[in-house]
Amino acid sequence: MKTEKTPQSGSVTTDPFPNSRKIYVKGNLHNVSVAMREIALTDTRLHGRAGQVEKNAPVTVYDTSGPFTDPNVEIDVKKGLPALRSEWIKARRDVEQLEGISSHYGQQRLSDPSLDALRFAHITKPLRAKSGANVSQLHYAKKGIITAEMEYIAIRENQRIQENLLELNGKAGSLAHQHRGHSFGANTPVKFITPEFVRSEVAAGRAVIPVNINHPESEPMIIGRNFLVKINANIGNSAVSSTIEEEVEKAVWACRWGADTIMDLSTGKNIHETREWIIRNSPVPIGTVPIYQALEKVNGKAEDLTWELFRDTLIEQAEQGVDYFTIHAGVLLRYIPLTAKRLTGIVSRGGSIMAKWCLAHHKENFLYTHFEEICEIMKAYDVAFSLGDGLRPGCIADANDAAQFSELETLGELTKIAWKHDVQTIIEGPGHVPMHLIKENMEKQLEHCQEAPFYTLGPLTTDIAPGYDHITSAIGAAMIGWFGTAMLCYVTPKEHLGLPNKKDVKDGVITYKIAAHAADLAKGHPGAQYRDNALSKARFEFRWEDQFNLSLDPETAKSFHDETLPAEGAKIAHFCSMCGPNFCSMKITQDVRDYADENGLNAEAITEGMEEKSREFASLGSQIYL
Amino acid sequence: MKTEKTPQSGSVTTDPFPNSRKIYVKGNLHNVSVAMREIALTDTRLHGRAGQVEKNAPVTVYDTSGPFTDPNVEIDVKKGLPALRSEWIKARRDVEQLEGISSHYGQQRLSDPSLDALRFAHITKPLRAKSGANVSQLHYAKKGIITAEMEYIAIRENQRIQENLLELNGKAGSLAHQHRGHSFGANTPVKFITPEFVRSEVAAGRAVIPVNINHPESEPMIIGRNFLVKINANIGNSAVSSTIEEEVEKAVWACRWGADTIMDLSTGKNIHETREWIIRNSPVPIGTVPIYQALEKVNGKAEDLTWELFRDTLIEQAEQGVDYFTIHAGVLLRYIPLTAKRLTGIVSRGGSIMAKWCLAHHKENFLYTHFEEICEIMKAYDVAFSLGDGLRPGCIADANDAAQFSELETLGELTKIAWKHDVQTIIEGPGHVPMHLIKENMEKQLEHCQEAPFYTLGPLTTDIAPGYDHITSAIGAAMIGWFGTAMLCYVTPKEHLGLPNKKDVKDGVITYKIAAHAADLAKGHPGAQYRDNALSKARFEFRWEDQFNLSLDPETAKSFHDETLPAEGAKIAHFCSMCGPNFCSMKITQDVRDYADENGLNAEAITEGMEEKSREFASLGSQIYL
Repeated sequence: MKTEKTPQSGSVTTDPFPNSRKIYVKGNLHNVSVAMREIALTDTRLHGRAGQVEKNAPVTVYDTSGPFTDPNVEIDVKKGLPALRSEWIKARRDVEQLEGISSHYGQQRLSDPSLDALRFAHITKPLRAKSGANVSQLHYAKKGIITAEMEYIAIRENQRIQENLLELNGKAGSLAHQHRGHSFGANTPVKFITPEFVRSEVAAGRAVIPVNINHPESEPMIIGRNFLVKINANIGNSAVSSTIEEEVEKAVWACRWGADTIMDLSTGKNIHETREWIIRNSPVPIGTVPIYQALEKVNGKAEDLTWELFRDTLIEQAEQGVDYFTIHAGVLLRYIPLTAKRLTGIVSRGGSIMAKWCLAHHKENFLYTHFEEICEIMKAYDVAFSLGDGLRPGCIADANDAAQFSELETLGELTKIAWKHDVQTIIEGPGHVPMHLIKENMEKQLEHCQEAPFYTLGPLTTDIAPGYDHITSAIGAAMIGWFGTAMLCYVTPKEHLGLPNKKDVKDGVITYKIAAHAADLAKGHPGAQYRDNALSKARFEFRWEDQFNLSLDPETAKSFHDETLPAEGAKIAHFCSMCGPNFCSMKITQDVRDYADENGLNAEAITEGMEEKSREFASLGSQIYL
Repeated sequence: MKTEKTPQSGSVTTDPFPNSRKIYVKGNLHNVSVAMREIALTDTRLHGRAGQVEKNAPVTVYDTSGPFTDPNVEIDVKKGLPALRSEWIKARRDVEQLEGISSHYGQQRLSDPSLDALRFAHITKPLRAKSGANVSQLHYAKKGIITAEMEYIAIRENQRIQENLLELNGKAGSLAHQHRGHSFGANTPVKFITPEFVRSEVAAGRAVIPVNINHPESEPMIIGRNFLVKINANIGNSAVSSTIEEEVEKAVWACRWGADTIMDLSTGKNIHETREWIIRNSPVPIGTVPIYQALEKVNGKAEDLTWELFRDTLIEQAEQGVDYFTIHAGVLLRYIPLTAKRLTGIVSRGGSIMAKWCLAHHKENFLYTHFEEICEIMKAYDVAFSLGDGLRPGCIADANDAAQFSELETLGELTKIAWKHDVQTIIEGPGHVPMHLIKENMEKQLEHCQEAPFYTLGPLTTDIAPGYDHITSAIGAAMIGWFGTAMLCYVTPKEHLGLPNKKDVKDGVITYKIAAHAADLAKGHPGAQYRDNALSKARFEFRWEDQFNLSLDPETAKSFHDETLPAEGAKIAHFCSMCGPNFCSMKITQDVRDYADENGLNAEAITEGMEEKSREFASLGSQIYL
């Protein structure tokens, strides 16, 4: 048991990325300026033309790190991040500021002096929709309103594609606008993402913008399969593990490396205070599993859970600014027996809590029976549903079974109810699934849940590698992302073994950025491939620093390179440590290219002409680079 | 530049795996005893029935580690491994022992006293096919002969499936006997691998057994898509990097973690001596790229390469016992211009060497023009072809282009010639390929190369993660393995950045075992899933030590677990660090299961009956485990 410690100035990571600067792109419809990271590149030295160079345009990349990586923003974790969205929210005139916190539990914690030392200092009065109003982005979208959040997202998703597409040498893909049954990228091309396209996808329920009106610090992002594939990082302290200070740094750290959302799964004491610190300092949407905290409130006795207590927990968290809730409303009493012959039964914590409650009372899951009341709370704060898959398989042997797919059908039924209330909804998916059974998950989800965004945990494609489950699951995650899954929940190397530390969080995030990006390439997202092309060009031209700076993890790339060839000179050397100075596979190409430039590209012509070329070549002592 | 050092006793890793013993399974047709690893498991403690236990049968796994992990075998790297196959080879009466080494270079090195200190002490006189004889396994297979190697492989591939299938609770897959266009596992089931099936696959050219008659130390293994997917690990020292001692340990180390073959890509000086040390101590087939050594012999000047010098190099290496040669005979003069407009040109070292030679002389590739003479050498020692893809793409942008696929067609043409000589042949593949373009590679390879086994490098599914290319490529490797690729060449975290150290080799091997195993599961190999099931059962029952011991890397799994819950007690505790003692998602299942045992599995009946059950349950204070 660690002694509690709250964040101090300097306890979060704030350095910018190498050779990168934060840029802000202005909107046209609203007063939005969208943060992006611009990576400056060095010049290309033209081979055999000493001194001559060619400029390389800077590369702009999607940036989830928030103000922490902008040296011009003063960071104070005790004050929290600037409230980017406050004006947009107020301008819609459909919210009111409450006199105080509505939840009993929230009031209790606030009035407990023993918590003063732990509490975030600047707790503002919560906002809530005016009576009768619905403040969800889905509600606005259906009414044809393009919100500031939607414009922000359109600009953000394009990553200045206009300029970047020019870098692609005609290698650009086209965005797979995917419909049911067409999840292999061969679809209606969308070359550019407009604010109206964002609105229409949200209105159709195909995409979700998790933006609680009480989390104005968050930079708007979208979860939908016709946009960049997103990743979530789970953090959270537990009785045995870590402090508030460590968890806040984990959140900032996860965003730095690319987490699009953070789920706070804290289970220790001080969950309420920990969450406040995390939300106030999070540039990305925060998700939670409210049943975890509810369980702590009844000292871990699932059978003591009640609707009233759970309802109070939802309001408590909604007023702090949680952007999406995992709700295990699909675990129905009649499905529980379907898990009896499984190899690993029920492995979802939320699922097992609800199963235990159902068995203890022999009643239907109260999340299911009170679902419409939950919707009323969600739309008053714009909290999105993440409908939990409490019966997901816990091993390869249990994949795609009756328990799993029965629950999925119920989640589809609940999606219709949520949409009736204009509540944004995503659907959670497995888990452990061998490769040949992955596509069926995507197809059934699209069918049963009417194309609501899918949000999967991996899936892990084998059970035999504990300690490497970030990899066993990245394989499944990349595939299901390609097939149409909108967000991938990361798995760290500690999965099944322990709680992730900072290194594990980074390993999990980078691994999932790889899976998500591989999926974006396969879907043909126009904003995906230019970064691969820029890095490959740098690699080919031995612009080592550019290769490092364009990579997902510049520090690691550079340190690996330096292990073999530490000298600074090696980074401008015209060869690499694998082939050595003697010869290099990439050098030859320049000769071929120079020749083609002179003689045109007709293969016949070239092979003819090469006779002569080969003589010159030999006469130069066969030195390609003089 | 490191000072050279040869292996000393104790310089290779020899400890057996935890709770594992080496077993030897006898054959029926030949005097073979097949090495396997048997992992002993602890008992299952039956819930709620204090003291009662259920035995768990030991699990047998495919073992590439060789005699090094058998405490009963005395290991002396200076003597090399026992010559397992000598008797089998002699018994076929088609080989003769030569008076001495035939290659000029080999003789030169042997007679150079300055190398005495480096030289492996016990160099035996090489074997060669008697005049007119063909000693390739393909030749025997076509004649209907089931060799000892084939029986060894049949037993090895089954991994005692008879017993193991019983462990599967009807969850067993069936082997995907894949034919062109049917690469999704839904194929003719093969429940058990017989020696005759091995022979027939080799005879059809669909599988290859790399077993040079001069490498009798190797344990026979097979490369073909109707068998377990295999992985290769590249090692090799270079002028700047490492010693012979380090490379031999890297080879032993790679086999320990699961490498099915090793490629020695040494490029430094003493390549000849390094190779001898590695082969004499390698329980797996050794592959090389002879052109690398040939290039060193002409001081790195590609244009100085000649057929005579290359031929001498092939004989030199064949007589040392190299089991397969990568030959870049498909890089034709007319294909070179097709690489001119690529983003990264030619990235294969062998490919660029041959391209440079072709340009310098404006002649056709001498590996292509002398191909039949190469076949004559291959069949005299049973060296298998690995036809190199010298024009493979070096980045996502260049994937599946004209240069790549033109070369592939030529490799198909060469395969026919090799088969005419009964020379075993596999085909090398990319490289860098986004997910949506992977399947086309497999389909074209099957079509153009008449189902000769495919051997790919990854492919990497994105270029933006240097430092993590074991992961970017494991995604592509798992997929192409599922589609039908027979062997996956590993990629380490150092790819593109530097030379792999021991840790990188282990990371690469484990990552590729994951990819290969995920592919075996997806193909429905009957010998694949029982290990997942055994591990998942152990996980579900909190048999922590069994979970560690059944994993690909017991050390890492155990150490990760101990980081969070170090106490020995935690390893027999009935909960895990993720959920804590308060409640655990897996506990609930036992209650469901016990209930189902009593009341049958009809959902109706159960939900009815649960009323009563829930009363009992409450009356027990809702404690599931007393």
